Amino acid sequence: MADGARPHVLIVGAGFGGLQCAKALRERAVDVTIVDPRDYHLFTPLLYQVASCLLNPSEVAAPIRKVFRGVRNVRYRQDEVVGLDHDTRRATLGSGAVLEYDACVLATGSVTNYYGNTSVEQHALGLKNLSEALQLRNHVLTCFEQATTVDDDAARRRLLTFCVVGAGPTGVEYAGALAEFVRLVVPHEYPELAAANVRILLLEGGDRVLTPFKPRLSAYTAGQLARLGVEVHTRTLVTSADDAGVVLHDGTEIPTATMVWTAGVRPRSSFDADDAGPFGRLEVDDRFRVVGTTTTYAIGDVAAGPGPHASVLPMLAPPAMQAGRFVAAEILDEGGRAFRYRDKGMLATIGRRAAVGQIGPLTFTGFVGWIAWLVVHLYYLIGFENRVRVVMRWAWYYARLDRPVRIIVRADERHSD
Amino acid sequence: MADGARPHVLIVGAGFGGLQCAKALRERAVDVTIVDPRDYHLFTPLLYQVASCLLNPSEVAAPIRKVFRGVRNVRYRQDEVVGLDHDTRRATLGSGAVLEYDACVLATGSVTNYYGNTSVEQHALGLKNLSEALQLRNHVLTCFEQATTVDDDAARRRLLTFCVVGAGPTGVEYAGALAEFVRLVVPHEYPELAAANVRILLLEGGDRVLTPFKPRLSAYTAGQLARLGVEVHTRTLVTSADDAGVVLHDGTEIPTATMVWTAGVRPRSSFDADDAGPFGRLEVDDRFRVVGTTTTYAIGDVAAGPGPHASVLPMLAPPAMQAGRFVAAEILDEGGRAFRYRDKGMLATIGRRAAVGQIGPLTFTGFVGWIAWLVVHLYYLIGFENRVRVVMRWAWYYARLDRPVRIIVRADERHSD
Repeated sequence: MADGARPHVLIVGAGFGGLQCAKALRERAVDVTIVDPRDYHLFTPLLYQVASCLLNPSEVAAPIRKVFRGVRNVRYRQDEVVGLDHDTRRATLGSGAVLEYDACVLATGSVTNYYGNTSVEQHALGLKNLSEALQLRNHVLTCFEQATTVDDDAARRRLLTFCVVGAGPTGVEYAGALAEFVRLVVPHEYPELAAANVRILLLEGGDRVLTPFKPRLSAYTAGQLARLGVEVHTRTLVTSADDAGVVLHDGTEIPTATMVWTAGVRPRSSFDADDAGPFGRLEVDDRFRVVGTTTTYAIGDVAAGPGPHASVLPMLAPPAMQAGRFVAAEILDEGGRAFRYRDKGMLATIGRRAAVGQIGPLTFTGFVGWIAWLVVHLYYLIGFENRVRVVMRWAWYYARLDRPVRIIVRADERHSD
Repeated sequence: MADGARPHVLIVGAGFGGLQCAKALRERAVDVTIVDPRDYHLFTPLLYQVASCLLNPSEVAAPIRKVFRGVRNVRYRQDEVVGLDHDTRRATLGSGAVLEYDACVLATGSVTNYYGNTSVEQHALGLKNLSEALQLRNHVLTCFEQATTVDDDAARRRLLTFCVVGAGPTGVEYAGALAEFVRLVVPHEYPELAAANVRILLLEGGDRVLTPFKPRLSAYTAGQLARLGVEVHTRTLVTSADDAGVVLHDGTEIPTATMVWTAGVRPRSSFDADDAGPFGRLEVDDRFRVVGTTTTYAIGDVAAGPGPHASVLPMLAPPAMQAGRFVAAEILDEGGRAFRYRDKGMLATIGRRAAVGQIGPLTFTGFVGWIAWLVVHLYYLIGFENRVRVVMRWAWYYARLDRPVRIIVRADERHSD
């Protein structure tokens, strides 16, 4: 025990795993501290809608303090953990403060993976956190503005060529949403431009889009993207990038001002790197304890396992949430049963009214898939009023074929005018 | 005529004046170009609600291209005008491009005025544009977060002391909204803090708050602010500021991490400074033509007049809008009558359900004033869906006593984690 009579549980990260763990410990006989440099839980599956001008940041982000409003045993601390001493059970924070704990849950998630390619990293726009989504929105809108005034044809084509690298769910959903933005907004509001001059390329290294899905769904998705005007290129790797554009593995140069990188993520682990196991994820035992420790757990994208030889869980929200609840039970000494991952399936949208999904043996496409996608996402959106408002917003703007959040604004322009 | 057969009207700035002028020229026999570095019209009267976590940026900002969606003779150009040649009728833009025009309307508005006090300017937070409002929101939320972990009592008191300088409508409305935020959110979500330790000071150089209003309304406002816990200090001037806090005219030092400066604005005129008249505003004749020119008009905050000896119009939205419509008629050769300013009165809210207003001989206070404030602001909010959504949002969050947009996010943190 750290200080008082109640065990102190330190949860590092307020993503899907950390938040579920903290929720399962609400009003139980432990004290919980959540440490996260960001003061909100981010609903990452809808991040691409912030980037594509449909949603406001606050509609995909729930303040952590609000989630635990009125909960007596859960505290939030805006900081980051930079070091752990498993023996003395002390965590060092970025601010220099030291927290004692009885149990620690590492749930720091993942960050964009550029695979060490520095020219790509320098020129790519990510889509993994709220700042990146806002920056991408600002960047794309600025490209359209600049394209309306530039004199040179080649320069205009470069500004209107958008490369999305990686055809996983994020890449597919963003490319589809961007294509709809172009179709719904450009003809009416950028009369200086011809929508036909806008190119959206989706570049994928594998042999099909949405590789985790069944081939039939990949084919359907590729067809839907083509219908929206997205040029899908599979078996295509980006090898480098500069201010002029991107270079592919076969030497082809694509002049572009925009490369959105959704081609991979890696665990975010600024400490304990020695413990890294498969794919850089922390190795854990069958109770999600980091190998070699007894009181440090790791869940979600940052952890492999459970179990040293078990199959690795996918880097998705459902396994992180399930592990969060499992670890909470372990900490409360109410566990005992083995962890069993229940596959909730996968869903991805391709623009309005089309989606693909697979849940066990079932697959969905088209409007049915889209409704399934809507229901699942609304169900998991944290916070009731968010859910209601996001539905109203979708209904309204989908009906009006509008994309309302089309403003270029940065919070850093102090005394800017 | 610049190029074609139709006169080209250049409107510099898409605030209340410029936007009204452009709207009055829609589908008429002129070509209009609006030049503004920001791609949106900002509803500045509600800016303080963005800063105080109630509204999202897109709810007070309408994309210019959306306002003129489908309008054939109005174009937008994201740039700024850095020079005008009245004789050749050419405008030089920041990008280096040159635009020819037949008539030019300067409607560049105003910026925060620090009266040359550099220590104040370096340490103050403004509340005059969207970037400043977001920066203020981020800053205040960060102060609360830091206050929860700081060990030193004096440091905590400094973080929880918020100085608002200037008790005009913006200062009063922001101080009231911040006080409500503290009352509604802090007890429930910052259990580490005592709401009683939070101090909000409203510092005013004059002898009462809301000096443009009748003394009775000023007294009512001061009472309402006191009821909300705002400490109002009149006849109080801030003379300097540093990292420790602010210094008053009598030498008093107030330790604070937050000085919000709403104590004055000045016209934004990066060019034609030689034409500056009263209070730095451009001198115009009785048709709003800049003195010495025949085709350059100036309206709104940037202009004095109309007429060389007339009383100067207040720096508010209604006179700017009226001048915008007047100048549009002049340009279309449909004017003729003299400009006559119709005073629409003034309104200011003090937190929820209380406001003050005066319209001609009438005055309102309390709930009646608040309803009047609501109706007027909704009426003038540009864009129908904005209006509907903002009402729904207000109704929802006012009823729930919540402040939803409580996230600290910057668009500039690229690859930040």
